[in-house]
Amino acid sequence: MTKATFPLAPGATIGILGGGQLGRMLALAAAPLGFKAHVFAPEADSPAFDVCAVHTVAAYGDEAALAAFAASVDVVTYEFENVPVETVRFLEARVPVRPGSKALDVAQDRLKEKRLARDLGAMTAPFAAVDTGADLERAIGAIGLPAVIKTTRFGYDGKGQAKIAGAGDVAAAFAAMKGAPAILEGFVTFDREVSVVAVRGADGAIAAFDVTENEHRHHILHRSVAPAAIAPAVAEQALATAARIGAALDYVGVFAVEFFVVTSHEGETVYVNEIAPRVHNSGHWTLGGAATSQFEQHIRAVAGWPLGSVARLAPMVEMINLIGDDAHDWARLAAEPGCLLQLYGKREARVGRKMGHVTRLIQAEHQFPGTNARAAVDKAI
Amino acid sequence: MTKATFPLAPGATIGILGGGQLGRMLALAAAPLGFKAHVFAPEADSPAFDVCAVHTVAAYGDEAALAAFAASVDVVTYEFENVPVETVRFLEARVPVRPGSKALDVAQDRLKEKRLARDLGAMTAPFAAVDTGADLERAIGAIGLPAVIKTTRFGYDGKGQAKIAGAGDVAAAFAAMKGAPAILEGFVTFDREVSVVAVRGADGAIAAFDVTENEHRHHILHRSVAPAAIAPAVAEQALATAARIGAALDYVGVFAVEFFVVTSHEGETVYVNEIAPRVHNSGHWTLGGAATSQFEQHIRAVAGWPLGSVARLAPMVEMINLIGDDAHDWARLAAEPGCLLQLYGKREARVGRKMGHVTRLIQAEHQFPGTNARAAVDKAI
Repeated sequence: MTKATFPLAPGATIGILGGGQLGRMLALAAAPLGFKAHVFAPEADSPAFDVCAVHTVAAYGDEAALAAFAASVDVVTYEFENVPVETVRFLEARVPVRPGSKALDVAQDRLKEKRLARDLGAMTAPFAAVDTGADLERAIGAIGLPAVIKTTRFGYDGKGQAKIAGAGDVAAAFAAMKGAPAILEGFVTFDREVSVVAVRGADGAIAAFDVTENEHRHHILHRSVAPAAIAPAVAEQALATAARIGAALDYVGVFAVEFFVVTSHEGETVYVNEIAPRVHNSGHWTLGGAATSQFEQHIRAVAGWPLGSVARLAPMVEMINLIGDDAHDWARLAAEPGCLLQLYGKREARVGRKMGHVTRLIQAEHQFPGTNARAAVDKAI
Repeated sequence: MTKATFPLAPGATIGILGGGQLGRMLALAAAPLGFKAHVFAPEADSPAFDVCAVHTVAAYGDEAALAAFAASVDVVTYEFENVPVETVRFLEARVPVRPGSKALDVAQDRLKEKRLARDLGAMTAPFAAVDTGADLERAIGAIGLPAVIKTTRFGYDGKGQAKIAGAGDVAAAFAAMKGAPAILEGFVTFDREVSVVAVRGADGAIAAFDVTENEHRHHILHRSVAPAAIAPAVAEQALATAARIGAALDYVGVFAVEFFVVTSHEGETVYVNEIAPRVHNSGHWTLGGAATSQFEQHIRAVAGWPLGSVARLAPMVEMINLIGDDAHDWARLAAEPGCLLQLYGKREARVGRKMGHVTRLIQAEHQFPGTNARAAVDKAI
């Protein structure tokens, strides 16, 4: 074990597993607090490498590289939940890892995730564990059809999933799981999707940004707006659920909980859809739109620092993802007054690839007129 | 010459001469626009190296290193005005340099600087060129005593200066110039010091942040506040003067003009004190306190991009430098809600060394209450 003392003093090095845009924005947030970033990622052209003090290109299973990484940093964090739990456990034996393997283990397993939410009193889509054909028959009996069967682990972007519309689909859907542990989930009819991006400090303190409303296109987040246009009581329900999840996972850092907003005859309520043990796309609006960004909050938490203010800086803040060719629009976006551009430094604008995002502070631009700076300047020319 | 096309597209590389905190914050501002930064500096432990894609450690006179640097970047800029003009001229023959050697040449010469201001109709302290003893006698006759004699070039922090309180000081003061071209300046009685941080685009467009009021301690900037508490007409005078200076220098990028605010029987007026051809300490409040920071504005300008919004984000914004041991106070500052901490990653907190700064948005914190995020979270625990 290294002898890092928390809170970490400026000058310490934060190790980051993963070199994509989330790792990049974490590294950019570490610098103003006086920390160096060491990014570990398997891809040689990782966007985060351009903004960190040190980087390592190696596979997540490369124990020699991991040991050297652990020895060179004061704490390790990760940018996404598909880092192998074994990698995190290997590092945990050598250096503090925040959040640790417990959160990762739950977030990588749909069944554990759903059970955690349910055990904390939150609503979820109806679900049941499916290991055998008999399990599946029972689960369908309880949940009904249509439903969807998913492998419990490492499903991503529709992989390892099969929809079961009617009895004729059951055998093929079960076969598609290839014997892996699975979960059957019923469908939920929802009005909108919201998320809570929260941060929990090493001391158990917790804070959350305003509930954010999310709009997807082609199963990719397109737009987030804060605050969500939901009743205060529903927002409180979502925030309280997120806080309970953070505490149950003994979590340190930023995490997100995605919810469906469901309307019944009793009014609106929220269902937990997914838990993400990391900074989250639906929290990107906080970069420039909140007093402290989710990236700085995460660095503060993993460094053992006090959490920052979660205050929103405008009546409404909007974030729009730049997907694939959207990023070619940079010149127009750069010319739009008050439009905060964040490009991720990725070389190739592939279809569906997140290339950047823009944030707009709605109505903030006109709140505090200056001393006619531009008018005076115009007059002088 | 390289074949860089302006505006530079994301993915291009910005070369930065100088690796101190200004180069560091420029590199951090380049990243969100999708640019890579290549920092060139003589010191191996330059703070900017921790946040850039590529760095070169070499002397400013190392032509082989400069040629390789020029070949690897799309545009060059510099973080401070003490880069040798010869270095910039060498690079200009190979790659666009913004701002170019003209601005540097003027800013490095107190006499050229004062004459430029005077020729543009701005007030300055009374001054006269002094090359010989006879020049000095004439100058004292015109300006009176007390006065101060300074070498025209490379004076910094009181070096190359001598105060002349009475006739008995003249000979020693002149000798202290060691034959270098000098300037005699009269004293100006002023109420306060303000500055304008402005940005001029490659297309000649100009914008300026609010006039900022500056408070020095031990000849080092201690605190800046925007907007300055001066009459709108005086602010306009300062802004218009800055705009004329920018145009006269055919300037591209961020620059600062420091002014004395002088009260006479005719009211307040501003005197030009100094021109800084770079991002400026008195503009640090814009990082988190304005819609676009001075660092992003500079990157936008040198990349040929449109300028960003200069809107202030709060009724008042305060910046306080952390000098030397002040930086040891990081834990207290990190715990202060809404206090934006910016540490420069310097290892050793020497006396008088700028280690970081904090920015506070006064009254912004309470402007837009959220959906009771913290209250709901507290209730859940």
